[in-house]
Amino acid sequence: MAQRVESALEAAVARAETPNAPPLLSAAVRHAVFSGGARVRPQLCLAIAQACGDDEPGLSDAAAVAIEFLHCASLAHDDLPCFDDAATRRGRPSVHALYGAPLAVLAGDALIVMAFDTLANAGQTAPLRLPALLSTITRGVGMPAGIVAGQAWESEPSAPVEVYHQAKTGALFVAATMSGAIAAGADPSPWRALGERLGAAYQVADDLADAVLTEADLGKPTGRDEALHRPSLVRDLGLKGAYNRLQSLVGEAVDSIPSCAGARELRELVRMQATRLAPKQLARSAA
Amino acid sequence: MAQRVESALEAAVARAETPNAPPLLSAAVRHAVFSGGARVRPQLCLAIAQACGDDEPGLSDAAAVAIEFLHCASLAHDDLPCFDDAATRRGRPSVHALYGAPLAVLAGDALIVMAFDTLANAGQTAPLRLPALLSTITRGVGMPAGIVAGQAWESEPSAPVEVYHQAKTGALFVAATMSGAIAAGADPSPWRALGERLGAAYQVADDLADAVLTEADLGKPTGRDEALHRPSLVRDLGLKGAYNRLQSLVGEAVDSIPSCAGARELRELVRMQATRLAPKQLARSAA
Repeated sequence: MAQRVESALEAAVARAETPNAPPLLSAAVRHAVFSGGARVRPQLCLAIAQACGDDEPGLSDAAAVAIEFLHCASLAHDDLPCFDDAATRRGRPSVHALYGAPLAVLAGDALIVMAFDTLANAGQTAPLRLPALLSTITRGVGMPAGIVAGQAWESEPSAPVEVYHQAKTGALFVAATMSGAIAAGADPSPWRALGERLGAAYQVADDLADAVLTEADLGKPTGRDEALHRPSLVRDLGLKGAYNRLQSLVGEAVDSIPSCAGARELRELVRMQATRLAPKQLARSAA
Repeated sequence: MAQRVESALEAAVARAETPNAPPLLSAAVRHAVFSGGARVRPQLCLAIAQACGDDEPGLSDAAAVAIEFLHCASLAHDDLPCFDDAATRRGRPSVHALYGAPLAVLAGDALIVMAFDTLANAGQTAPLRLPALLSTITRGVGMPAGIVAGQAWESEPSAPVEVYHQAKTGALFVAATMSGAIAAGADPSPWRALGERLGAAYQVADDLADAVLTEADLGKPTGRDEALHRPSLVRDLGLKGAYNRLQSLVGEAVDSIPSCAGARELRELVRMQATRLAPKQLARSAA
């Protein structure tokens, strides 16, 4: 699965790297995509496509690639000086730290466009699935309630914390699960709950990591939620409360998986991914 | 035609403005779209759809809206402090001047996503046209040779001027003409030349305006090409040479229009739009 995601990402990036592309933009896009990401969302998308039969594997690959490109675009933009001003990401220089803010903006823009180009290209063999696939993915990214809206809540005087978290993290997980089903020709609605619960679990895990880990542990600046006065579940529930919330969300995610051919493997995968979520320090102290 | 474009833009923006959208992001998106743009590209797109029969008007509207959203997104990003640092655009405050750089980045991102969401929504009634429509539009915007790549050439140590101009301006005009044809179910290839010539004409007109007009004339800072050492046809050919080039490009554009039901009206439209292109000062001195 991990190999399938990397191959699909590599092929999609290579399609845009013709000799007449600006070389630094190409390099910035490549850095944004291939910098040690865990590929949680595209693997989830493909796992659900497989659980639903995966009869158009090129379209499932495209959905997984689009989701990851959009995630990488959001990271390149979130790290900009006008937002988090993060010089590192996953222990490496952020896109703007290496290529400057202009190319970080443009690499993000290019990746958003490449996401839809990848879907258009793969959609030629199954055009009837394309409108729903596109709408599901745009909903996870754009206005009113996708990841762009989630980031925009940080520019508002105040933000409803549930709406903020659902948009900032949950929306793209929902897009990942539902688009996996659509790419395989299945009804996406039974897969919404899995995306919602996993998205919420990742947001709690992110807040926990920001609160308890050091920059050396995490490969990016930490303590940002407190420094930037961002809503955080650790602030609302305390460390222990947030940790318990994470565990119950993972349980709900596993329970939400609808019955299908690949349900057992999928439950295993979700449980396995989930064990990596909580900072080890907390898992030990809670044990 | 102008009214049809405005109505379609209004409907597409309204679709994203649900009560749970972040209010400042909504306002920034609205400012980016409704700030006195000439709507040259979407009108061109619709004119060609009409010349080709316009049998799916909702899809033609969506193509025109997508092209204009992508154009507005590129302006919001180009005006950012890390690029042109322009406080004004069309005589009004730029998006970042009014809402700050974070919301200007996010409004641009949201508009890119909204462009594809608009196409997905309209494409439900004609999904077989969607893959080509999407690919044509992504080619005009992304990597390797769309407007994002055009902007990225300004971050390279040197840029081939033809490639730079074709990407920065020509590519979206080509997308406008070809997507108009595709939305109407016609072969897009005969419409490429019109987009290329008009795009080149607009780039020359833009270089001329930047060289000879004042900020008060143009509603945005001028003299930027020279200040930022950007390639400019005025620098290469002189004022008179650039003016002559503009006239011959418009003639070539008119001549390139393929024979079709609406060819005569379209030639009129292109000629009429073209008379507005050259700064009046130059038209007078050349007359």
